[in-house]
Amino acid sequence: MMHFDVLTLFPEMFAAVDTSIVGRAREKGLVEFNFVNIRDFSNDKHNKADDYPFGGGPGMLMMADPIFGAMGSVDAGHKKVIYMSPRGRVIDKDKLVDLSREEELVILCGHYEGVDQRALDYWDAEEISIGDYVLTGGELPAMVLIDALARLVPGVLASEEAATEESIYSGLLEYPQYTKPRNYQGMEVPEVLTNGNHKLIHLWNFEEALKLTRDLRPDLFEEFVKNHRELNKDEQKVMEKVINML
Amino acid sequence: MMHFDVLTLFPEMFAAVDTSIVGRAREKGLVEFNFVNIRDFSNDKHNKADDYPFGGGPGMLMMADPIFGAMGSVDAGHKKVIYMSPRGRVIDKDKLVDLSREEELVILCGHYEGVDQRALDYWDAEEISIGDYVLTGGELPAMVLIDALARLVPGVLASEEAATEESIYSGLLEYPQYTKPRNYQGMEVPEVLTNGNHKLIHLWNFEEALKLTRDLRPDLFEEFVKNHRELNKDEQKVMEKVINML
Repeated sequence: MMHFDVLTLFPEMFAAVDTSIVGRAREKGLVEFNFVNIRDFSNDKHNKADDYPFGGGPGMLMMADPIFGAMGSVDAGHKKVIYMSPRGRVIDKDKLVDLSREEELVILCGHYEGVDQRALDYWDAEEISIGDYVLTGGELPAMVLIDALARLVPGVLASEEAATEESIYSGLLEYPQYTKPRNYQGMEVPEVLTNGNHKLIHLWNFEEALKLTRDLRPDLFEEFVKNHRELNKDEQKVMEKVINML
Repeated sequence: MMHFDVLTLFPEMFAAVDTSIVGRAREKGLVEFNFVNIRDFSNDKHNKADDYPFGGGPGMLMMADPIFGAMGSVDAGHKKVIYMSPRGRVIDKDKLVDLSREEELVILCGHYEGVDQRALDYWDAEEISIGDYVLTGGELPAMVLIDALARLVPGVLASEEAATEESIYSGLLEYPQYTKPRNYQGMEVPEVLTNGNHKLIHLWNFEEALKLTRDLRPDLFEEFVKNHRELNKDEQKVMEKVINML
């Protein structure tokens, strides 16, 4: 079970995490959310939570005091605290596996130009990014992080395989997939996928995944060629073929 | 003005894009959304939109037919089509600037194990990723893309500067910022930010941004040292100091 305390000025944005797989995980008690509106901890009579930055510059900054109140309310001093920020380490599978070992996470979502640095220093927040681009706030990144982490909680995915079979996890991009009907407006499903020969299907999938990775993500392909799991003779042949087609 | 057609099985997840800056941009007519529920185009009497993949494998795949119907309904043949996918190119500022030049974008959100490949091939979908991690569906990535793109639409941000001043855009991570009060529970705002000397404030901000980037993202720092804009004498001195502290 993984417990998330999410501190934000926009709790209503998080409706999206209660859909689909993460929503079902919450119903099953595998993940748990506590959304805290930082504005509720403002001591200002207008519930103000932001102010101008010292030294000038555009935009507003979230003030320390309401964040301190919200942090205190979730006992953040005894939990791991994350701040979603483009300054942070960009998540990848290693970082996700690492974070998924926490039973409790406090996620602080900045908005506007960010938060008063003292709130990050005092609560020892680890800055985490979802990628090298600028967004309006930490709310969407927090949802991305929650979704990616929830999938790693045991029992959340229908089969453990579902997580590991997918693209990045095995180190290769996903091969093309097809479903019914076999012929759609004249476009046929590749013959090999329809004949029930599981060995040939596997080799076709493997070859397509290798080719896609080689063409679209040479960095991942190089990594895979260096560090792949043990291959059988047929798989080895497929890989050599794809390498030699370079 | 930028128009987004978003094709998804979970339109209700997109409430989050109507908040804050993107919500205001929509009110001002700077961005426009058309959310299309793919399930509405199912020709199955149970509104089925997914089925088992040919060749086996875990999970379900979104069928071609409902996607074709949804694509047709937004005239996708005459628009740029994007498919959110971990196979795609990971967005960065260059790709975002590139996409922000489109006036109309169709964004297809996959869910479960993905979509029938024929739907991607036929509609010439460009695959776009927000990062090297696996998520439950394309909905959160689509929201991330929309937020990042909306910020680039002229008029959306309060000042054009707001976009360029921020972390990644100038090539450096953001320096620490502080707001009122000057002393919070014994923690002081750095003196230099409170004395109104804009030249010193600028140099302090620049030095902090350089140090943070050097320590947290050596890749971006190296890039910045190679390709920075022209620096004045004082800025040059600050940069040399930070480089020599390495």
